[in-house]
Amino acid sequence: MDAFTPLSEIAEHIQQGDWSPVAVTRFYLERIAALNPRLNAYITVMGEQALEAAAAAEADLQAGRLRGALHGVPVALKDLYETAGVRTTLGSKFFADYVPAADAVMVQKLKAAGAIVLGKLNLHEIALGVLNDNPHYGFARNPWDSSRSPGGSSGGSGAALAADMIPGALGSDTRGSIRIPASLCGIVGLKPTFGRLSLRGVFPLSWSLDHAGPMARTVRDTALLYAAMMGYDADDPFALEMPDEDPLPALDRGVNGWRVLIARDAFFTDADPRIVEAVEQAAQTFAALGAQVETVNLGDLRDTLYTSRLIVSADAAAYHDGRLNESPTDFGADVLARLRSGHEFSGIEYSLARAAQTRTRHRMAQLFRECDVLLTPTTRVVAPRFDNAAEVETARASMSYFTAPFNMSGNPALSLPSGFTPDGLPMGLQMVAAHGREAALLRAAYAFEQATDHHLRRPAL
Amino acid sequence: MDAFTPLSEIAEHIQQGDWSPVAVTRFYLERIAALNPRLNAYITVMGEQALEAAAAAEADLQAGRLRGALHGVPVALKDLYETAGVRTTLGSKFFADYVPAADAVMVQKLKAAGAIVLGKLNLHEIALGVLNDNPHYGFARNPWDSSRSPGGSSGGSGAALAADMIPGALGSDTRGSIRIPASLCGIVGLKPTFGRLSLRGVFPLSWSLDHAGPMARTVRDTALLYAAMMGYDADDPFALEMPDEDPLPALDRGVNGWRVLIARDAFFTDADPRIVEAVEQAAQTFAALGAQVETVNLGDLRDTLYTSRLIVSADAAAYHDGRLNESPTDFGADVLARLRSGHEFSGIEYSLARAAQTRTRHRMAQLFRECDVLLTPTTRVVAPRFDNAAEVETARASMSYFTAPFNMSGNPALSLPSGFTPDGLPMGLQMVAAHGREAALLRAAYAFEQATDHHLRRPAL
Repeated sequence: MDAFTPLSEIAEHIQQGDWSPVAVTRFYLERIAALNPRLNAYITVMGEQALEAAAAAEADLQAGRLRGALHGVPVALKDLYETAGVRTTLGSKFFADYVPAADAVMVQKLKAAGAIVLGKLNLHEIALGVLNDNPHYGFARNPWDSSRSPGGSSGGSGAALAADMIPGALGSDTRGSIRIPASLCGIVGLKPTFGRLSLRGVFPLSWSLDHAGPMARTVRDTALLYAAMMGYDADDPFALEMPDEDPLPALDRGVNGWRVLIARDAFFTDADPRIVEAVEQAAQTFAALGAQVETVNLGDLRDTLYTSRLIVSADAAAYHDGRLNESPTDFGADVLARLRSGHEFSGIEYSLARAAQTRTRHRMAQLFRECDVLLTPTTRVVAPRFDNAAEVETARASMSYFTAPFNMSGNPALSLPSGFTPDGLPMGLQMVAAHGREAALLRAAYAFEQATDHHLRRPAL
Repeated sequence: MDAFTPLSEIAEHIQQGDWSPVAVTRFYLERIAALNPRLNAYITVMGEQALEAAAAAEADLQAGRLRGALHGVPVALKDLYETAGVRTTLGSKFFADYVPAADAVMVQKLKAAGAIVLGKLNLHEIALGVLNDNPHYGFARNPWDSSRSPGGSSGGSGAALAADMIPGALGSDTRGSIRIPASLCGIVGLKPTFGRLSLRGVFPLSWSLDHAGPMARTVRDTALLYAAMMGYDADDPFALEMPDEDPLPALDRGVNGWRVLIARDAFFTDADPRIVEAVEQAAQTFAALGAQVETVNLGDLRDTLYTSRLIVSADAAAYHDGRLNESPTDFGADVLARLRSGHEFSGIEYSLARAAQTRTRHRMAQLFRECDVLLTPTTRVVAPRFDNAAEVETARASMSYFTAPFNMSGNPALSLPSGFTPDGLPMGLQMVAAHGREAALLRAAYAFEQATDHHLRRPAL
């Protein structure tokens, strides 16, 4: 098999009997062994368990027992999804030896669809940050330039996918933690509607804003993973019941006649002009595909950036309160500062932030009565250099500017590649749709992807 | 016409041309003039405007223009619903001269259905309390014993209805403020599903827990008001879109085969044994009506009581922050203490309270997968005496014990009379249903009401 084969093609080859699950798993374990020392995308590689699971999948297939759409396909998990018998660190010193008894519901679903779990991916410590400069498990590095961050918090997921150390992965997104690494690593990441995917067995960062979601290198791969993950979990208190729609059957039906909004005013915020220009080009692509493209004013999003930060900091401080009191220095400096800030907010500030969240949700609901898809940049900057203090500071302060509003509103949103800078760094296009309309969102993303070739470019490794 | 004619019969008499809107309005204005000095249920009586509106309604009717189901029917409003050109005090010194420019959406809807607004009803200061011992506009008093509280915060609504100073009224309910006065005054009060009725033009107490709702003397009257009020308001950020169901067509179809749960363990909480016994008798009534009655354990509800109090105190402190800083002593002592406590909660405490709210909502959603209606007492005590410090203290501490959990969960809940103590004080039965099932809730309440005669009893005035 070849590197950079899309997950959906791997699945097809396996189901047709061309490729063996064991051979595919071995292939990826070898790539991980070769590339991980440089990119540090994995915290834990589950070599032995993966080969056992692949052998069982192979035996099932030979006996004519197809488990599901992901039969024999390797996947990896951000290391905050609990895995039975395999340590789940949360990228934190406190959980270095934590071995859960059961798989998270999302992991159960992927396995039920036939997927083989290869390992646990690096993340920003406790998922609270956008750089993945993890002081306990090492920096995850961007395959397009290893002096740069892959973004975060799901940075290991982004790096592993961009380097094809895995064809599909799970991330989680509280203010942009799926979409930001997708943008900075030139891959696809989907944050579904709030409450859509079960969070049982996933470490919380903020119970008001957390989302589970898939990441992959193509839109079809992302849709395939999402289809395996969807379905209401009545036992998750934070899940919301809504009708499920399989995105695959209508994926290639295009966007002719759809209404697409481009958020032009939101660009007046120090965004990299190359990223802005790529979004403008994307709008032209949609127009060429038959969509009606119009401009919308989102206004200044800094308030939402601030209120979402407040909620996350306070929720995280609430969850980690005991650890913060007992051994604060076991947190990295940036995370400790964020948690301490979370301690300082008053109940009144939190109350006002939640009221602001309701207004943001309402405003976005009104916006999506008028359109099918909204386009914005995913991030204002390309991948920052770890050793450039100014770039790091900018990233910390405002990397979530375009992404956090849709955690506040709960709308489904994804990032996919919109192009590359002249020096070969990926740029991300964020697309957003109405509550519950993941299938439409993926369909529009697929139309854009098929009209462009950004997803075909590969990093020099 | 006779006093204590149900609102739905008044509506019928008017529509049949038996009674004139002007005569009905005059009748009520006279009763208000006679009884309000003693009961203090009204803060503002809108005599002139009401007579003008009644004359216009009468002219419309004579011209064959029926406005709607409430044509010519008098209603009154808790004085936190904004009324165009008529002061809206919130029971607060700060708003003694506040004259809104427009009617609240709920007021617009009642007027559109033909209702005549007679006045603005007393409430616990800023709606933050259960006694209605208002230091600025006087104590509202319980028509069954004027030394006692009518409950609160919609105490004026409860008192006016129990004394037939109005046949229908609006209240609002954040931790029980519709159901508590309904219970203590022997009338009916409905708190619909969270997000069901528009709150535009209603002073907020807590944007996480506020509900608008109707109050009346019979279940049918309550259903008639609710039917005129329902319908999603796309312009209210706090409204949630859900299908509307008119409760009237199926109101009298009974509960044969329905599953009714009685929350027996929740009774081990110092509730008045007479109130507990009345709920047991209600369960027997439901069994006799063909329902399957079963016991459920709700567990100790004190945590929910506490977390809901925290959320309300912090939200109210956030809303009244400026007033609290500038002229704290213009608040009454009890409200000032509550607002100050709201200032002291941390963001972490608020965050944990909201997470607890989500768990409560989830637990109740699971409960209502298994049943149609849940029965509990509405309150643990009967109407407290204003001059009995122990009764007042108990009321303040735990009057919301049974009601607040359903503000936290958002389930529709109502209170209706379950009987009277030997000394003639009303007791309340709370009934609760699944999210969005107001029609089922009203149908079950109607079945119970028709099988009993508690709603026919009248106070000696």
